[in-house]
Amino acid sequence: MAQEIDEGTFRFISEHRVARLATVGVDSRPSVIPICFIFDGVRIYSPIDEKPKSVPSNQLKRVRNIQANPSVALVIDDYSEDWLELSYVLIAGSAKIISADVDRVEHMRAVEQLREKYAQYRQMKIDERPIIRITVTRIKRWAPDSREIKDGKED
Amino acid sequence: MAQEIDEGTFRFISEHRVARLATVGVDSRPSVIPICFIFDGVRIYSPIDEKPKSVPSNQLKRVRNIQANPSVALVIDDYSEDWLELSYVLIAGSAKIISADVDRVEHMRAVEQLREKYAQYRQMKIDERPIIRITVTRIKRWAPDSREIKDGKED
Repeated sequence: MAQEIDEGTFRFISEHRVARLATVGVDSRPSVIPICFIFDGVRIYSPIDEKPKSVPSNQLKRVRNIQANPSVALVIDDYSEDWLELSYVLIAGSAKIISADVDRVEHMRAVEQLREKYAQYRQMKIDERPIIRITVTRIKRWAPDSREIKDGKED
Repeated sequence: MAQEIDEGTFRFISEHRVARLATVGVDSRPSVIPICFIFDGVRIYSPIDEKPKSVPSNQLKRVRNIQANPSVALVIDDYSEDWLELSYVLIAGSAKIISADVDRVEHMRAVEQLREKYAQYRQMKIDERPIIRITVTRIKRWAPDSREIKDGKED
């Protein structure tokens, strides 16, 4: 990663249960969905079929988008009616679809960590399905106590 | 809009307090941020400076992105540890920055509706700042009770 990640930001990311993932289609249109994920400090992993789904994984828009354009963005945030409590982390990264066949060790480790964080996955066959791996290239955190943008530019 | 919106979906969208907005940069990289918004059944409006900010509005990434590429996507969702409770609405649209000078009536109406929904805006000068207008082109809702994808394709 191009920047060091502090303990507070690492915990903010890894302790959240949901993130929203944006990808871009070949038509240059964005797509955004809620995802479950784990973060190991360098990479984020998200199963592509974490919820009941009925379509083959390679037909999912996020998979097609990532195969065509690996650039992704995530936001992890807490909404609060007290806007002085608002905080979020923006993440830019490069995504790749990894499979149990080709990337066996990494895939298995991601499955274990996902099942440790989410009990819901323990009964789901995520070990047999591809996983999205996001290599984090940039992290920006905004929180009221800092009142600043870590890398100088706002979104 | 290309499709009819049912009452339940309209309420799901308009009653939520936060959405996540994805835009695409000229470099084809996505960006995603939490936003506050109102929905009138056809269009979504979001102030571009709803939270304390220190940079001019035309330097905000979402504004630059929209000016270069009007295609945007939003997700509105509720996370729950009971995954049978998960539901979300995906919205695709075309965005435009409107200003109090050029689009006076529409801008004023959006400001009023934003201040009605969010008391926080009543003390903020959103009437003097540009607003993002998103013309909704496609809505897709997923909820456990329907167990279906409204337009036949999943994200």
